[in-house]
Amino acid sequence: MTQWIRFAEAGVTGFGTLDGERIEVYEGDMFASPRPTGRTLALGSVVVLTPTAAGKMVALWNNFRSLAAKLGNALPIEPLYFIKGNNSYLATGQTIRMPKSYGGKVVYEGELGVVIGKTCRAVSEAEALRNIFGYTCINDVTAVDILNRDVSFAQWTRAKSFDTFGVFGPVVATGLDPMQLVVRTILGDQERQNYPVSDMVFPPAKLVSLISQDMTLDPGDVIACGTSIGVGSMKPGSTVAVSIDGIGTLVNRFE
Amino acid sequence: MTQWIRFAEAGVTGFGTLDGERIEVYEGDMFASPRPTGRTLALGSVVVLTPTAAGKMVALWNNFRSLAAKLGNALPIEPLYFIKGNNSYLATGQTIRMPKSYGGKVVYEGELGVVIGKTCRAVSEAEALRNIFGYTCINDVTAVDILNRDVSFAQWTRAKSFDTFGVFGPVVATGLDPMQLVVRTILGDQERQNYPVSDMVFPPAKLVSLISQDMTLDPGDVIACGTSIGVGSMKPGSTVAVSIDGIGTLVNRFE
Repeated sequence: MTQWIRFAEAGVTGFGTLDGERIEVYEGDMFASPRPTGRTLALGSVVVLTPTAAGKMVALWNNFRSLAAKLGNALPIEPLYFIKGNNSYLATGQTIRMPKSYGGKVVYEGELGVVIGKTCRAVSEAEALRNIFGYTCINDVTAVDILNRDVSFAQWTRAKSFDTFGVFGPVVATGLDPMQLVVRTILGDQERQNYPVSDMVFPPAKLVSLISQDMTLDPGDVIACGTSIGVGSMKPGSTVAVSIDGIGTLVNRFE
Repeated sequence: MTQWIRFAEAGVTGFGTLDGERIEVYEGDMFASPRPTGRTLALGSVVVLTPTAAGKMVALWNNFRSLAAKLGNALPIEPLYFIKGNNSYLATGQTIRMPKSYGGKVVYEGELGVVIGKTCRAVSEAEALRNIFGYTCINDVTAVDILNRDVSFAQWTRAKSFDTFGVFGPVVATGLDPMQLVVRTILGDQERQNYPVSDMVFPPAKLVSLISQDMTLDPGDVIACGTSIGVGSMKPGSTVAVSIDGIGTLVNRFE
């Protein structure tokens, strides 16, 4: 298992592998034979960035059986998704901001993120699994009051694409079996979400295969796999953490 | 009025201004003091690319009064939008492809595209107008049968983000008054759309200002302003052209 991290050091972007509090710096392309430089850095000496500069973040709705059952939603027969704007991306440690143009409820949604490693175009599930680089934590922040306020048009993209609403990190972890993972979300000092990835309607390999029939997925693209039970609202001053064993903890303050 | 074009010459991406059949080649950043190289190229000697490498394409629904009236839709009180995936981008002259995973109706939607020139974050309308770089033609191709086939979730992003469905170009034209423009769509040899931009509910400067309250817009980002009356389906073998005086004609074959 390797944890890849991206960072800024004196304004210059770099990447490497994380080992506790040390970063082993690499060069080249994270997804194509990156080369170790031999240099190491203290994690505390850099600014941690989102683990990829994702060309797109595809995000699922209604992808967990337990949440669908709780809400009385029928299970989907195909993945139901939207795109979160690239302006929304936010790294661990950064502040999620209440939009100035919105005064409503803002919720956290802890999720598993799939990070693509090789171009996927109409791939099979087996091929999809080989083309997945690794996994990350996601907080799919949502301005819920916007979602259905226009009766003619559900505003998924808008409610979920405000600046700072696309939170992912702290690393991309490779070599994990996603079906063994558990997603936990902690608001302040209270655990609010704790659910197994195995409850997914469309698990990672199937998701990547099905979405790749529609859209070419590129290295660094992220799929936010949808959330399950325990979504709740954040108040200004809240700290929210999404934690997955093997990946680590994505921590952000909301203001 | 200047027409900016992006191209590939022997596999290398370049850009410049178009004057009839000649390109005057520039270097640097199209949006920040590009420098003429003194070199010129024949338009026919290069492959024309989309005029920007857009970080995102934000696309409007229900933004024309005539179409809303015809369909019996209430006029929106705020811009209603989704994002077209970056995988969908297609340049003039390239082929729009029927998705292998879909056998339904595919429609053209001729639209005006706004190209951002400077970062827009919560800008006023006056500032928005100064931050717009120029205008382009868009064909917002849509797999319409997907849109509402799941009753619980309208699939805007998916129906409009198949590879090759985000068609824009051939150039970005600067120095135009958008409110004077007319969008025409020609399918084969028949004109199917011919509508004035002045019929927009949210015209360009207002759109950019309002969207920038939600999402930071970056140089090269494109806003597809929505379509009006005359949308129709394409059959394999169809040629579709979206034409706006001052910008030129975006021509693609559908297979």
